[in-house]
Amino acid sequence: MITPPYLLFLGDAPDRLAAKVAQGIRDWRPDYAIGQLRLPGCKADLGLADMTLEEARAAGAETLVIGVANRGGVISETWKEVLGQALELGFDLASGLHNLLRDEPALVAGANAHGRALHDVRIPVVKYPIANGEPRSGKRCLAIGTDCSVGKMYTALAMEREMAAREMKATFRATGQTGILITGGGVPLDAVIADFMAGSVEWLTPDNDADHWDLIEGQGSLFHPSYSGVTLALIHGGQPDALVLCHEPTREHMRGLPGRALPSLEALRDLGLTMAQMVNPDVQVTGISVNTAGLEEAAARDYLAEVEERMGLPTVDPYRHGAGRLVDSLAAIT
Amino acid sequence: MITPPYLLFLGDAPDRLAAKVAQGIRDWRPDYAIGQLRLPGCKADLGLADMTLEEARAAGAETLVIGVANRGGVISETWKEVLGQALELGFDLASGLHNLLRDEPALVAGANAHGRALHDVRIPVVKYPIANGEPRSGKRCLAIGTDCSVGKMYTALAMEREMAAREMKATFRATGQTGILITGGGVPLDAVIADFMAGSVEWLTPDNDADHWDLIEGQGSLFHPSYSGVTLALIHGGQPDALVLCHEPTREHMRGLPGRALPSLEALRDLGLTMAQMVNPDVQVTGISVNTAGLEEAAARDYLAEVEERMGLPTVDPYRHGAGRLVDSLAAIT
Repeated sequence: MITPPYLLFLGDAPDRLAAKVAQGIRDWRPDYAIGQLRLPGCKADLGLADMTLEEARAAGAETLVIGVANRGGVISETWKEVLGQALELGFDLASGLHNLLRDEPALVAGANAHGRALHDVRIPVVKYPIANGEPRSGKRCLAIGTDCSVGKMYTALAMEREMAAREMKATFRATGQTGILITGGGVPLDAVIADFMAGSVEWLTPDNDADHWDLIEGQGSLFHPSYSGVTLALIHGGQPDALVLCHEPTREHMRGLPGRALPSLEALRDLGLTMAQMVNPDVQVTGISVNTAGLEEAAARDYLAEVEERMGLPTVDPYRHGAGRLVDSLAAIT
Repeated sequence: MITPPYLLFLGDAPDRLAAKVAQGIRDWRPDYAIGQLRLPGCKADLGLADMTLEEARAAGAETLVIGVANRGGVISETWKEVLGQALELGFDLASGLHNLLRDEPALVAGANAHGRALHDVRIPVVKYPIANGEPRSGKRCLAIGTDCSVGKMYTALAMEREMAAREMKATFRATGQTGILITGGGVPLDAVIADFMAGSVEWLTPDNDADHWDLIEGQGSLFHPSYSGVTLALIHGGQPDALVLCHEPTREHMRGLPGRALPSLEALRDLGLTMAQMVNPDVQVTGISVNTAGLEEAAARDYLAEVEERMGLPTVDPYRHGAGRLVDSLAAIT
């Protein structure tokens, strides 16, 4: 769908979290990511070679991927200038922003003039059904979080990688633009019409072999007032057999909402189970995934051990220490 | 926006619930509803005069309103024939279906040829913000239900009517096509893009006088897997000060989901409070609204008394016995 390899456009990202689209591609498809392009003031750095458009084309890049998300999405004049130059130099463009490339007349004209493609991966391309709530064959695991951007996608991708290594049947199911850019398919859930949210998740995770696991990418949080409805649609459409709780222990308030504290892992466990049991009475919480990027190694290990003791569940940072123990728990209920 | 009076099109409605759009207009704007048009096989009857298109035009009808909802929305060939004739005879058309009048080439051509308007009230006409979760001045009441179609809109409209009679400051806030058709404005919530659902509800219920009440029309149910995400967005965007629990005691299973039992009123109370307290710690459940249309008068009164005793909350059927006691509860916390 989108032609690799990519030059990852980080724009003027205000912080590392804002570039999580690019970070995800860099971590999970490193062979696709041959360089990064940063504008003045950019606070994100993927550790890739900084390249001009010309340098990246010379190195073989085919697509400029907008790897930075803004709240609500926006394409500034500064960005448009760079994107226009990229089209002139022979790049396709790919974006997961709410504001669409195809809605920018200058970009449409540039793409037409130079025979290039504009990929807006956030736009649904399927007519989804209304959810029917009926049980489906196969197993499903969903990551739910105490907040947005706490590592739900990473957790599912790391579990998929570990399960593939063990030759278990497993498929990562993308529900956001990063996941779609990484895997080439999925549901851009936050852009789906409200009535069809849960149905789109049922569509994404259909009947499968009894021993096959869908690893469903989580979105938002039941506790985040801006996006909680999306999260609940994921739970009720996904009918998970297993929930993995995701948390970021250094977060001072919920993302974008100063003053609003994160819920406890206990509150997330209880509310997640309450909601998931409505569609799957046998659902279990099988593990806890903590994003410890903000902690030193010793502090991270102490924190994980404390949570594991307190909650009685395998507790790991899958990025730092691997997803093996989270997969052990899934394997135990297959 | 839409020109009254209306001829209400009931199509081939399979049951009374399917015609709830028309029923709502007939009950809350009876002066707008001068007749009904039913096709062979129609199982709904509003008790209005059955009229042909010609008879309704002669009686002064300006708009043919599609008053029947189908699951997911559909415009059949049979319907299109009637709608095309209506345009020829000088009707505007208004619809809240997912499938749009404007997407039907024959209807667009007919409207253009005869100078008539096509109103698709389900389509959002505002660019809504992402919710910020910040407190707003004024008070808000939200009806939540054990299921879809249990009387949430009726409850809010009946409370608004009662509050107007008492000269309290109150505004019904429509979140669905019927409410929008009745009041001429609102948010077609189930057609809003997922990420903007909660923000659209914040937009609909802005800062207001400290003693002003928004009566927010509920949608779906936290317990209905097809639509629960929409309900949670209403709770988190609406930041209700008061919740009214709505229930229909003769319902054998959740609407559209055979085999799935309705939750108890206790479960609805507890989960509703858990969710609403995240955005408004002072929220209270102020009353219970029961749709007793399926019960005889004595059985209805017995049922209401039993629930009131069990739950310790004013319990009424606002359609049958008035919304006075529900409004008394609100007045007590103003």
